[in-house]
Amino acid sequence: MTADRTRSGCPVSLGLDLFGDRWTLLIIRDLMFGGKRHFRELLSSAEGISSNVLADRLQMLVASGLISRSGDQTHRQKVIYRLTQQGIDLLPILLEITRWSLKYRPVSDDDRRAAAAAPADQRELDRLTAKLTREHLGDPAPVS
Amino acid sequence: MTADRTRSGCPVSLGLDLFGDRWTLLIIRDLMFGGKRHFRELLSSAEGISSNVLADRLQMLVASGLISRSGDQTHRQKVIYRLTQQGIDLLPILLEITRWSLKYRPVSDDDRRAAAAAPADQRELDRLTAKLTREHLGDPAPVS
Repeated sequence: MTADRTRSGCPVSLGLDLFGDRWTLLIIRDLMFGGKRHFRELLSSAEGISSNVLADRLQMLVASGLISRSGDQTHRQKVIYRLTQQGIDLLPILLEITRWSLKYRPVSDDDRRAAAAAPADQRELDRLTAKLTREHLGDPAPVS
Repeated sequence: MTADRTRSGCPVSLGLDLFGDRWTLLIIRDLMFGGKRHFRELLSSAEGISSNVLADRLQMLVASGLISRSGDQTHRQKVIYRLTQQGIDLLPILLEITRWSLKYRPVSDDDRRAAAAAPADQRELDRLTAKLTREHLGDPAPVS
């Protein structure tokens, strides 16, 4: 993220400067829980993100170090997006949003069942973090 | 929040439908940690929210049940904004954003010192939640 969007030295504000919009955390969600890695996959979310907003957000997320962009060795023309450690560490924020919404929002039955698998304590959180680290931080091949 | 902004049944999305913008969680922060209760106080945040955005967000937050609006018995023409239980329960989300930013963002020294008082375990979180509940849910006087 560019410095011009930094609004104050407050940690809440500094976080929201990066992911306080209607789309960024949904992209992180799809990389984290949806197994999505390619632009086309990320474009097909249930929320209907537009192509230009997705491109803009991916570029911002790469620039701010929350995701990485690398070549897909099995498809020469494709790029793969993965979470960095910074991106993986957004997991507790997504989990707290999920907990809040399960309590107060009309979460669909399917999503309610899926959310039941969310970590319930620090040990399960550490295990999921380790799993995401293996999935996302292995074998990157940077592209220009 | 009106139904037309609901994008999917996913809990992350349903939460972000309400507070996934650049301002809403900053207003919650100021009510929660800044002791602010009046429009003018909320307008004076470090991030420079505009008057019309603040008015819009407050109206949305009242409509969606995250904050309440009531008369200030000491100032007949003023209204007081307070967090509801739903709003207070956003605390863990704000704390996780704070933790993430302390790790990865250029948090100011003053804010870093202030954040050191944040709850470090469930017991401290429960204590802070109880304190906020006393502060915000006592003696409301609804206005039309």
